[in-house]
Amino acid sequence: MKKHNFSSGPSILPQEVFEQAAEAVLDFNNSGLSLLEISHRSKDFVAVMDEARALALELLGLENKGYQALFLHGGASLQFAMIPYNLLGANQKASYLETGTWAVAAAKEARLFGEVEIAASSKDANFNYIPKEIGVSPDASYLHLTSNNTIFGTQIQSFPEVTIPVVCDMSSDIFSRELDFSKFDYIYAGAQKNMGPAGVALVVVKESILGKTGREIPSMLDLQKHIKGESMYNTPPCFAVYTSLLTMRWIKNNGGLAAAEKRNREKAALLYAEIDRNPLFKSTVQGEDRSVMNATFVLTDERLQERFDALWKAANISGLTGHRSVGGYRASMYNAMKIESVQTLVDVMKEFEKQA
Amino acid sequence: MKKHNFSSGPSILPQEVFEQAAEAVLDFNNSGLSLLEISHRSKDFVAVMDEARALALELLGLENKGYQALFLHGGASLQFAMIPYNLLGANQKASYLETGTWAVAAAKEARLFGEVEIAASSKDANFNYIPKEIGVSPDASYLHLTSNNTIFGTQIQSFPEVTIPVVCDMSSDIFSRELDFSKFDYIYAGAQKNMGPAGVALVVVKESILGKTGREIPSMLDLQKHIKGESMYNTPPCFAVYTSLLTMRWIKNNGGLAAAEKRNREKAALLYAEIDRNPLFKSTVQGEDRSVMNATFVLTDERLQERFDALWKAANISGLTGHRSVGGYRASMYNAMKIESVQTLVDVMKEFEKQA
Repeated sequence: MKKHNFSSGPSILPQEVFEQAAEAVLDFNNSGLSLLEISHRSKDFVAVMDEARALALELLGLENKGYQALFLHGGASLQFAMIPYNLLGANQKASYLETGTWAVAAAKEARLFGEVEIAASSKDANFNYIPKEIGVSPDASYLHLTSNNTIFGTQIQSFPEVTIPVVCDMSSDIFSRELDFSKFDYIYAGAQKNMGPAGVALVVVKESILGKTGREIPSMLDLQKHIKGESMYNTPPCFAVYTSLLTMRWIKNNGGLAAAEKRNREKAALLYAEIDRNPLFKSTVQGEDRSVMNATFVLTDERLQERFDALWKAANISGLTGHRSVGGYRASMYNAMKIESVQTLVDVMKEFEKQA
Repeated sequence: MKKHNFSSGPSILPQEVFEQAAEAVLDFNNSGLSLLEISHRSKDFVAVMDEARALALELLGLENKGYQALFLHGGASLQFAMIPYNLLGANQKASYLETGTWAVAAAKEARLFGEVEIAASSKDANFNYIPKEIGVSPDASYLHLTSNNTIFGTQIQSFPEVTIPVVCDMSSDIFSRELDFSKFDYIYAGAQKNMGPAGVALVVVKESILGKTGREIPSMLDLQKHIKGESMYNTPPCFAVYTSLLTMRWIKNNGGLAAAEKRNREKAALLYAEIDRNPLFKSTVQGEDRSVMNATFVLTDERLQERFDALWKAANISGLTGHRSVGGYRASMYNAMKIESVQTLVDVMKEFEKQA
């Protein structure tokens, strides 16, 4: 019996994607060959990469606007270094909005390449809100944002308007909502939340912001080389790219980002309503900063933990334990999660209240 | 019907590995969850990574000798930059044996970090041999070798003895033969030939050679950080690691490297004997430098190409076309290839001779 998987990442993907990916491992496109054993330069795989790159731009509404989509090795963590390597000159400054663990990690890598200013930080309150007043130097090379903070359960709902290029880590909410993505110059996302399995990152970059630092860049970190190589500068992580393509097709076939956002808001509303109503639970984030993807909450009486844990595990729920830096619980409700799974969790919370 | 897949990479893996990998995509270890949707910090996946790291050292006979095995993002191409980043100080020199396209690419990246000397090169003859006389500065930080040259069909059979650390790209012959691996200080291999699917690289490094350059290294390129993180500094490419583990288990269960080498030598002997015997074919590499993994050969009469191509395609053979820089044909006979597939190719070559 399939579990209700609230894991924060790697995380749930659509069941049909699992089935199609497994089939491709056995026999890809009825070719008599596994997806894992065919050349990345073969006609069949080039078609996968081309469709994946085009569909990423299509879902974001960024076709024919000077953007390139790339599927790269290294996850979002390698992007933390690639961004300053490609965008931050040695005597330049970059501005980082510090909203959580990953934003801090991204800024740390940038300091190896140039000056870093912190536009604002919510570290004072264990990152339980998104700072609204931010100070960005107009001469900074770029502003770096993290749109959704998986660990702390916060999400930027209203993006700052600035005149410099905006770089955004959308690892945990890519393809989960409609936005005017043309306001961003560099979007990146590790696949393993809303897009695919671990082992690949999507980078969507406006070509015009590249090539300005005068720095020599190792080939595998050079975005212009990856663009020239049509995202196959070296052998790409073929299985992770293909499975990401399957997920993007699923998103498109189910109404695109508008429908995904509607489903995600319904799931989040259902769960947050119960967290707010049920006296045994308390949200760790208030108001508009709450993430639609990851709801973090704690017990009002920690002595009841064992009893609650037994209840949700018995209901075939998994992956609900919160990150050690927040504690409590975290329900990740990515694109592929059905509202029935959230309802199961809400039912468990109500049952817990009855029994307490 | 399954094809005889001579692809140079991504390439054939054992059929049971495809079946086990596909099953894990549907349901991992009967957990009710896909391998793709579980946390890399979960007990089940940590066990995969631990076993993969231990088994890599065991197969190479390098347990308890100061080596660490890592499974990293980025393929061998990212290693081209990570090696000098970690080993080559700004005022130091590294020595590269230039035996093909990948050796040239590796040396190119090193030039961004320090001085590069070419210990020897076979570029003069389109890399169709392995240079035997090499000049290595005794004060070089390391000597870089490529043990097998997929494109040109050459392989180092006797390794140079030097007093400096030896770094070796074994992407296309890892786990294919017995060697005294303790003579190497840094072994690396993109998975997609003998070890697994594209999207992960194995790095086996002697810890004592690290941390000596005084250079600040971006976290994702810092081998000491990856060692400290037990190969999970960030979310690893879980599926590629697991499939590599399945392949390593298969190698171990089938007699380890000694048996793999015996099978590989039998396959290569069968094919090279036919190339040498059949007047319609000519090997592009002579004598001891011939690769046991990749046999490269051309037609003595190129006008017969269409006829030969039709014959091998009709025999359900795929992936036989040579790399554009050599032309002709390339038969890659990695660990997972059965001798029956090589026999099928040999039979086609004999039939071709009869018909010509």
